[in-house]
Amino acid sequence: MNKNAITLALLATVVAPAMAQSTVSVSGIADAGLRSVSNSGLASVRSMVSGANATSRLVIRGTEDLGNGNSAGFHLEHGLALTNGTAASSTQFWDRRSTVSLASKTAGELRLGRDFVPSYSNWSRYDPFSHVGAASAGNFVSATPTGPIRSAFGSNGNTTVRANSAFQYLLPGGLGGLEGGLMLTAAGARSAADGQNKVTGLRLGWAGGPMGVSAASTTTENDLTTSGRFTDRALGASYDLGMVRVSAVVRQFKQAGAKQTNQLIGAWIPVGQGEIKASWQRADLAGQVGATVIDANDARQIGLGYVHNLSRRTALYTTYSRITNSGASVRVVPGGTSGMAAGGTSKGFEAGVRHNF
Amino acid sequence: MNKNAITLALLATVVAPAMAQSTVSVSGIADAGLRSVSNSGLASVRSMVSGANATSRLVIRGTEDLGNGNSAGFHLEHGLALTNGTAASSTQFWDRRSTVSLASKTAGELRLGRDFVPSYSNWSRYDPFSHVGAASAGNFVSATPTGPIRSAFGSNGNTTVRANSAFQYLLPGGLGGLEGGLMLTAAGARSAADGQNKVTGLRLGWAGGPMGVSAASTTTENDLTTSGRFTDRALGASYDLGMVRVSAVVRQFKQAGAKQTNQLIGAWIPVGQGEIKASWQRADLAGQVGATVIDANDARQIGLGYVHNLSRRTALYTTYSRITNSGASVRVVPGGTSGMAAGGTSKGFEAGVRHNF
Amino acid sequence: MNKNAITLALLATVVAPAMAQSTVSVSGIADAGLRSVSNSGLASVRSMVSGANATSRLVIRGTEDLGNGNSAGFHLEHGLALTNGTAASSTQFWDRRSTVSLASKTAGELRLGRDFVPSYSNWSRYDPFSHVGAASAGNFVSATPTGPIRSAFGSNGNTTVRANSAFQYLLPGGLGGLEGGLMLTAAGARSAADGQNKVTGLRLGWAGGPMGVSAASTTTENDLTTSGRFTDRALGASYDLGMVRVSAVVRQFKQAGAKQTNQLIGAWIPVGQGEIKASWQRADLAGQVGATVIDANDARQIGLGYVHNLSRRTALYTTYSRITNSGASVRVVPGGTSGMAAGGTSKGFEAGVRHNF
Repeated sequence: MNKNAITLALLATVVAPAMAQSTVSVSGIADAGLRSVSNSGLASVRSMVSGANATSRLVIRGTEDLGNGNSAGFHLEHGLALTNGTAASSTQFWDRRSTVSLASKTAGELRLGRDFVPSYSNWSRYDPFSHVGAASAGNFVSATPTGPIRSAFGSNGNTTVRANSAFQYLLPGGLGGLEGGLMLTAAGARSAADGQNKVTGLRLGWAGGPMGVSAASTTTENDLTTSGRFTDRALGASYDLGMVRVSAVVRQFKQAGAKQTNQLIGAWIPVGQGEIKASWQRADLAGQVGATVIDANDARQIGLGYVHNLSRRTALYTTYSRITNSGASVRVVPGGTSGMAAGGTSKGFEAGVRHNF
Repeated sequence: MNKNAITLALLATVVAPAMAQSTVSVSGIADAGLRSVSNSGLASVRSMVSGANATSRLVIRGTEDLGNGNSAGFHLEHGLALTNGTAASSTQFWDRRSTVSLASKTAGELRLGRDFVPSYSNWSRYDPFSHVGAASAGNFVSATPTGPIRSAFGSNGNTTVRANSAFQYLLPGGLGGLEGGLMLTAAGARSAADGQNKVTGLRLGWAGGPMGVSAASTTTENDLTTSGRFTDRALGASYDLGMVRVSAVVRQFKQAGAKQTNQLIGAWIPVGQGEIKASWQRADLAGQVGATVIDANDARQIGLGYVHNLSRRTALYTTYSRITNSGASVRVVPGGTSGMAAGGTSKGFEAGVRHNF
Repeated sequence: MNKNAITLALLATVVAPAMAQSTVSVSGIADAGLRSVSNSGLASVRSMVSGANATSRLVIRGTEDLGNGNSAGFHLEHGLALTNGTAASSTQFWDRRSTVSLASKTAGELRLGRDFVPSYSNWSRYDPFSHVGAASAGNFVSATPTGPIRSAFGSNGNTTVRANSAFQYLLPGGLGGLEGGLMLTAAGARSAADGQNKVTGLRLGWAGGPMGVSAASTTTENDLTTSGRFTDRALGASYDLGMVRVSAVVRQFKQAGAKQTNQLIGAWIPVGQGEIKASWQRADLAGQVGATVIDANDARQIGLGYVHNLSRRTALYTTYSRITNSGASVRVVPGGTSGMAAGGTSKGFEAGVRHNF
């Protein structure tokens, strides 16, 4: 008994310094691979890419138990390019998330700071490729082509993925599968450079058994480039059939007379210690920007991938994708030779390793 | 006995990796809130702010026991804006502190690198709002108005808060309440951009029972903008009456013919698990810069706040402040509409959450 | 028995949070000192310097055991200036290394990302001053003078130290002292700014008993500035005589008609708990760049230093170095007054503290 007491006393002494650390965790993802991109009529290009399966990142976060089911927490998340060691954003080091939270198991969470907008979150959960890699949905969510996104933000930071200075309320667990939240940003002092915009967003979903369904709407007012509103709505569902999990999601961006509708059908197929992933996507533009009619500038993308898990934390992966453009559309898999002609086809192939730490 | 030995052996094995880490700690502060600022004659502005109770930051530091009361240590401290994930300084990532130290319990500490200047440290300890938030003393320590600070540094980095390339000696504890130190910077290769200046500083204080008193002087030579000296002196005292702790501090900046004297009276009143904070400040300009007489450009600020501790690490807070300007002075609470007329009044109100991790 | 079981159960609970952290380590180096540089005919300059014994840095890394002698790992390494808290590179935060690895004890390691080029690694191990401080070999590896390095890269990032987007294979241990590896970079999308170049490199060495010998070759194609190849070869050896360890290494840079050959003889002499270090170096230029003949622009450097270990992690150090230039050469110890005349002499002296954490 005494000896055990001594053991415990020693334990307390020895473990103390580590315990003082225990509420702060340092984690992240290191992901790098090789990609080859071939744009029609142009030389194909091979390059090393970072984060083709999951964005390379460093996460520092922690929570504090306040008792009675309440907690406080913070989350700092830095995106980086493993290829050359640069920050993913040249101006926002903690570009992926920077928040402080107060949470209650019964009343939900208040969260302040930079985070994903509801519509983005509502898309990415239904996308087998999660907005990254050769088959990224991000290939169709760009401010480069003339359309509602460019029209609303120009080349300034946009809110199709994240928003700054956001106040969020998130529903607690235990509501019978109901989940979601709302986002408001206090954009009093707007800055074009860092994508400061006034955002109002809402997300509501339900998950039960093999099924999940959810909807989100995000509205942005940005009077730096235009006085109109930018709306971003997403509706999706998924069903797990066991042998395959399937999903469908649609996301619509609108600004003044321009509209872009992205649709995706996705599938995840478990095979042994790996998983096959497939997606079919379409970007449908409609209306006009100023005098430019954009209806014909559509694009389609297929993505096919395989992820082989070496452990719970480390995987090898490979992805193939192909983008087919119509009209003036020149959407491409990133990394190819620039200058593809309108209506061209872009193909990407990549293979890499992703390590969660 | 044997079983305990096994327990300890297991313990040693299991704890080893954590112990290797135990000398480096990752800590910091995540602080965000909402602020409303109303400048006289202009529309009020609401925004989300970072670090209104304490600057949001990430700290990586550690010490090594060298035996015989000696130790080595390092301290890296990065300021950040929780609102948008940017570094507080676009050029100096570890803007708050970057030092290496050798210390002895009896002989004191040698510290090399970037750190607070003595005069700043000697002010902030007597300021209930510690140079941050709506009622920050920083509202009166700015290089924008014509006065000694602008005259000495222009819009280059200044030494009113920190200095680069500093060599410091700090007194050890156990001197009967005496504390302090000196700072010298080796500014051979001066750079305007990062505030490299030649600094000589000294701080000396005494604390005993409920009372503390201290004085500091910091002199900067900056031949990038001017050949004159910039002097920054601070003298303060505090007394803890139990029901309230009160303080008084005066800080004087001088450069050529211009002088600015800041005065503060502060109070901290414990109430239950919280604390009321109050400060009254005055900035008194005198003399002239070139042909411009600055005597009339004074300002006053009152600050009133309440901090409610949810735990030792997490707090809710609220602050009200009001700045009254005279003459050509246009000092404001940060975050309002710009362009207030000379002599106007600026009011700020904020509420937020601060989480130490 | 039961009590021990309880002890272990408690242990498991208590240690768990730390264990979740145990695979990620946060470490680094904090190094600062004072340096005086005297360039012939000019005023001497004293300044504080960071990393004169070892570059100040923050390292976040970890490995995961995949079983059967296999492992996955990552390594993020950020260089910094302790003097003012800036990142060592303004664009590449993780400038020193950013890699993900798969390794096998018998088959070796695959490593993807930014890392040292083989020729650099093959020089630095034979250099007592490891490319840092007043006696740095880096004083002779600069893109400033007209020569093969400038000719190949201009003022863009060069590959004399590291390369981006590199694929490496490294030999495993247990090959009877044989070690080495190869590097290939996939530089499809080349960027001048971050030193993106197409690199092919190889290193092969053997170490046994007191002796080590190794050779490396790195070839860079950079069509941003020139269509020619830049070759960088290094051959070195060291021998530990017990009272002194001696080394000799030669490194040759070639580009079109220009050639630079650096030679070094080094020595490490253990004395008590410290070490004396000495190096003699020569940079020999030959050939021409365009119409400019560079043969006469040679330089020599001697370095003499002492490192006194206060512990395994912390040391005091001092270094003296002198550079003698010939012809148009104006190589200098960093930190002095600029504008030294061609053929001048530059002397540096420094003393500081280095703390590994």
